[in-house]
Amino acid sequence: MLIEVDVAVDVAVDVADGAEAVDGSAADVEAFARAVLGTLAEPGDGTLGRLVGALGAARTVDLLLERAPVERVLAEVEAAGEAPTTKELEAGLARWTPRIDHAAFVRGLAQAARVDAVFIVPGDACWPSGVDDLGVHAPLGLWVRGDPALLRPGAPSVALVGARAATGYGEHMTMEIAAGLADRGVTVVSGGAYGIDGTAHRVTLASGGTTIAFLAGGVDRFYPVGHDGLLQRIAESGAVVSELPCGASPTKWRFLQRNRLIAAASQATVVLEAGARSGSLNTAGHAAALGRPLGALPGPVTSPASAGCHRLLREFDAVCVVNGDQILELLGAAESVADADAASSGEGDRSIVARHMVPSPEQVRVLDALSTRAPRDVADLARRAGLGPGDVMGVLGMLELDDLVAYRADGWVRRRRRAG
Amino acid sequence: MLIEVDVAVDVAVDVADGAEAVDGSAADVEAFARAVLGTLAEPGDGTLGRLVGALGAARTVDLLLERAPVERVLAEVEAAGEAPTTKELEAGLARWTPRIDHAAFVRGLAQAARVDAVFIVPGDACWPSGVDDLGVHAPLGLWVRGDPALLRPGAPSVALVGARAATGYGEHMTMEIAAGLADRGVTVVSGGAYGIDGTAHRVTLASGGTTIAFLAGGVDRFYPVGHDGLLQRIAESGAVVSELPCGASPTKWRFLQRNRLIAAASQATVVLEAGARSGSLNTAGHAAALGRPLGALPGPVTSPASAGCHRLLREFDAVCVVNGDQILELLGAAESVADADAASSGEGDRSIVARHMVPSPEQVRVLDALSTRAPRDVADLARRAGLGPGDVMGVLGMLELDDLVAYRADGWVRRRRRAG
Repeated sequence: MLIEVDVAVDVAVDVADGAEAVDGSAADVEAFARAVLGTLAEPGDGTLGRLVGALGAARTVDLLLERAPVERVLAEVEAAGEAPTTKELEAGLARWTPRIDHAAFVRGLAQAARVDAVFIVPGDACWPSGVDDLGVHAPLGLWVRGDPALLRPGAPSVALVGARAATGYGEHMTMEIAAGLADRGVTVVSGGAYGIDGTAHRVTLASGGTTIAFLAGGVDRFYPVGHDGLLQRIAESGAVVSELPCGASPTKWRFLQRNRLIAAASQATVVLEAGARSGSLNTAGHAAALGRPLGALPGPVTSPASAGCHRLLREFDAVCVVNGDQILELLGAAESVADADAASSGEGDRSIVARHMVPSPEQVRVLDALSTRAPRDVADLARRAGLGPGDVMGVLGMLELDDLVAYRADGWVRRRRRAG
Repeated sequence: MLIEVDVAVDVAVDVADGAEAVDGSAADVEAFARAVLGTLAEPGDGTLGRLVGALGAARTVDLLLERAPVERVLAEVEAAGEAPTTKELEAGLARWTPRIDHAAFVRGLAQAARVDAVFIVPGDACWPSGVDDLGVHAPLGLWVRGDPALLRPGAPSVALVGARAATGYGEHMTMEIAAGLADRGVTVVSGGAYGIDGTAHRVTLASGGTTIAFLAGGVDRFYPVGHDGLLQRIAESGAVVSELPCGASPTKWRFLQRNRLIAAASQATVVLEAGARSGSLNTAGHAAALGRPLGALPGPVTSPASAGCHRLLREFDAVCVVNGDQILELLGAAESVADADAASSGEGDRSIVARHMVPSPEQVRVLDALSTRAPRDVADLARRAGLGPGDVMGVLGMLELDDLVAYRADGWVRRRRRAG
């Protein structure tokens, strides 16, 4: 452990929650190191996932904090049997090292302790092993407010997601379905957003059921602000979860990555109401890419708020579901899929995630990092985006061609979206 | 030709319409014989279909009118390479011969001549060859009022069907879609019923498009009566079609068989609005069984009028369609399916037709033949149902067990359906 802070001690005990050792054992150190890495990389960083897979989190942290040269890291990785290219590794180090900030890390830990958040890692009894299906993009660990035992695999769970701009129809159907699932002991997973997500959580709570919210920022600051009370209640009787450290704010990239967790941590995903461009289609895409059962609730063709659901039915082989019983049948399918996976894997991959994300992941991150008013230089953008400076320059070039960014005398700005 | 009637001469010319010969040629005789057989058997009689396939219609008529014994018919059929069992053939002869009625046949022909109906048979240029996919259950011929050339294969056509009990939503969507298809030159096929069917026809006419109505009774008497004016207009600019002779009234069995023609004569079938037990699901079942593209328009889950559409999406792999363009895509699929059929066939059969018809075909026919007030004897029921007396007795026994029929001192009656 290269980081030593008093406050971290309290957290380190929670960190080990569920693991066998509690007194600075290897598991303890490894878990703590994962928390450190969570502050250096953006969610879903595949290069870091491979590095941790090869060397372990503790060794990875040591190398990063020592600022070990790329050749040395590469040699260790290759010795462990993994082989990211030098270029990948260089880009990774360039992304992660500018974010090393002991003070910020300590602040995050202190904040986690203050809100009673615990950090769980793979191997813990309560670790939702479904997320491991994300491979090198799996989360390194999860911060949980509430009862982490609710995340343990095996418990029947359904992601109920949908648009923020929900109609009376969508909310009515969400109420019917969430209440029915809660009555049957199914955990309702969602994203805590306004509209369908919030209705799903709220009705599950009101029905005495179990609900889990995955956030795109730290669990210390609930987002959206208008759902602070709701998320507080979820934390009291269910769980509020994020892979981001306390203090991290939500960005578009983090919302997209949060969606992958909703899909991966649930046995099935159902979109209850979604317009043609709703973010919930991204969650649906992740579910399909993971080979998880995907359902969509139809609505009036005359309602643009259901257009995304109809698209899922039409283009992505989503199953048409009209009530809670039919969603339970999807869960039955989930078990069969899991069985079949033992024999053959990868067959369910329809790569529809990419189709929903028109800009590349790097472009999204750089756009998030830009301001429309305050010009920012490449080093600043690289740190904000969690990308290497070279990558940021490449991305800026592409975005400039698309007229999405502009260079001013004192740095880059994001162009305002044109009307229409 | 064993039947000779003056009035038949005029008809016989029309009968040959589209065929090469016009003066009592073999094709002429064969077509005329098919018209005769159409008065003896119910639609979709597979035994008769096999007999005609083996011996030709003219020879079949000769044998029937001569009342040839079953052994002789069987010998001829076997010599031709087909082999229905003695039992099947016996049952067939017992069904058909009681219906031989020269006077009624002549009345039917005269009526056809009066309403300018023409009779088309396989081999005619305008014969809708899609119906031949029904195999031994294909129609022997079709009576057409209007322009028979509109039936010719190759022209893009879609069956737009749905419930009689349509809602404002269903009618609105039917208007949008029928008008869009008419604008694109697609022929709209339907069943002339109230609700969705009638709206589809009416809007297509109003848009200057081509529409074809298939009826469950003779084309001389339009059914339903309230659509007399509409069907008249369809006959003027489109076509009104039936495999039943003039004078035949619609029965439940004939509606179900009419549905198979709608599905088989169209390149794709789309159910626009249908409750869980709508007859249009039967049409959809035929389309699926034939391997034809099947579409369903979703609606609000809260509307029972859309429950059948959702069932098609969920259970029968219907494609979710929300507008005319997506229906045109189904037609594209129809072409690919036709291509693929050249290589492998039968794969599309999902035997869902049977699932929609809880009573057996014979039960439906006998129930149709019964009255709730006037008791009828077995011979009378056999003639009305187009079944052999032995079959009728067997069916009556089963129906009695189900409490659906009762025997009175003077014959069988159908029990009134109990409330609920």
